[in-house]
Amino acid sequence: MISLSKCRLYVIIDRAASGGRDLADVAAASIRGGADVLQFRDKTASARAFMKEAERLLSVARRADVPLIINDRVDIACAVGADGVHLGQDDLPLAAARRVLGPGRQIGRSTHSLEQARDAEAEGADYLGCGPIFQTPTKPDAGSVGTELIGRVMDAVRLPVVCIGGIDRGNLAAVLEAGADRVAVVRAVCAAADPESAARELKQTLEQFHARV
Amino acid sequence: MISLSKCRLYVIIDRAASGGRDLADVAAASIRGGADVLQFRDKTASARAFMKEAERLLSVARRADVPLIINDRVDIACAVGADGVHLGQDDLPLAAARRVLGPGRQIGRSTHSLEQARDAEAEGADYLGCGPIFQTPTKPDAGSVGTELIGRVMDAVRLPVVCIGGIDRGNLAAVLEAGADRVAVVRAVCAAADPESAARELKQTLEQFHARV
Repeated sequence: MISLSKCRLYVIIDRAASGGRDLADVAAASIRGGADVLQFRDKTASARAFMKEAERLLSVARRADVPLIINDRVDIACAVGADGVHLGQDDLPLAAARRVLGPGRQIGRSTHSLEQARDAEAEGADYLGCGPIFQTPTKPDAGSVGTELIGRVMDAVRLPVVCIGGIDRGNLAAVLEAGADRVAVVRAVCAAADPESAARELKQTLEQFHARV
Repeated sequence: MISLSKCRLYVIIDRAASGGRDLADVAAASIRGGADVLQFRDKTASARAFMKEAERLLSVARRADVPLIINDRVDIACAVGADGVHLGQDDLPLAAARRVLGPGRQIGRSTHSLEQARDAEAEGADYLGCGPIFQTPTKPDAGSVGTELIGRVMDAVRLPVVCIGGIDRGNLAAVLEAGADRVAVVRAVCAAADPESAARELKQTLEQFHARV
């Protein structure tokens, strides 16, 4: 399985963004298009339904040897044997999540400022989300941090930083020019008419950019 | 610490029912009034806020040597070191919760029919909730199973059965006459003007009834 530090394209499989499509199909298409890692997020499902879907997505991910990260619910990550958990600022503290999850699984933390990024690194996160880079309908109240935070965070921490928030094929180049080396997308893949092509296009841009620099 | 099988009065500390009061105060008052076990439930808080409050309630419960059970979030029960977790029908499956929680902690399951009660016992629950006995504003859509289910469930399973749902001092006797030997309350204590007196009155009724039979 690819190490998270080598992942370029992180696709978040989000029920609300997927417009009623089968999430296992969206996940498989994302992987065919080049997603290096998947995260599963469903803020409205019951724990039981979330777990059941997580098990389906994990079997899709396992077949492709792609890591699956679970959003928020450390217990569900643990119960299904996922590769890690992604925590927002209002989710469990890092140390608590690590205690439940045990060693050997990845813990990511969403960060929205330089200070939060430094804190997450100090608390023991394995990778950071950094954003929202742009305004996104996925998190309408979150505002945006802009591309200028990217370089500052990447200079300040040694962890892998995954830029997120409203990134799509139209603005990906700006995110890369600002210093990003990996990005996470939700709607740019899950809400695309063709998630596989959407993922492929993003992945190609990421790879071409990094082949160039 | 009292064994769950000996608990008569199970008080669920619920933020929504507590009308803005400090939950640690409500918990302490419940215990002074005779609560044998507490459950903490907060369906709207973030995981981080829920965990923080759970830690406060756990220290109140520990001082009184009363078990604290966490609703739904197995990860939070685990992270704070609570005495167990209570699962609704839409929460994690028993086996998954046990895998995360490890042995030695209690897992309760809400059941609303004889079949669910038998299933929960077969799946390895440590105790059952049975209800809603009466209609309750806490779960307005859940209807009610009535007192007649109590005897049937208690005849069918060997686990401790905690009757719940709209139970208060006005109808507790009917629940006990129907065969209940332990009850859980939310609003009857959390929403009472004086939670301590409310718990005490319920506890006395429970003890007097069982001294008599």
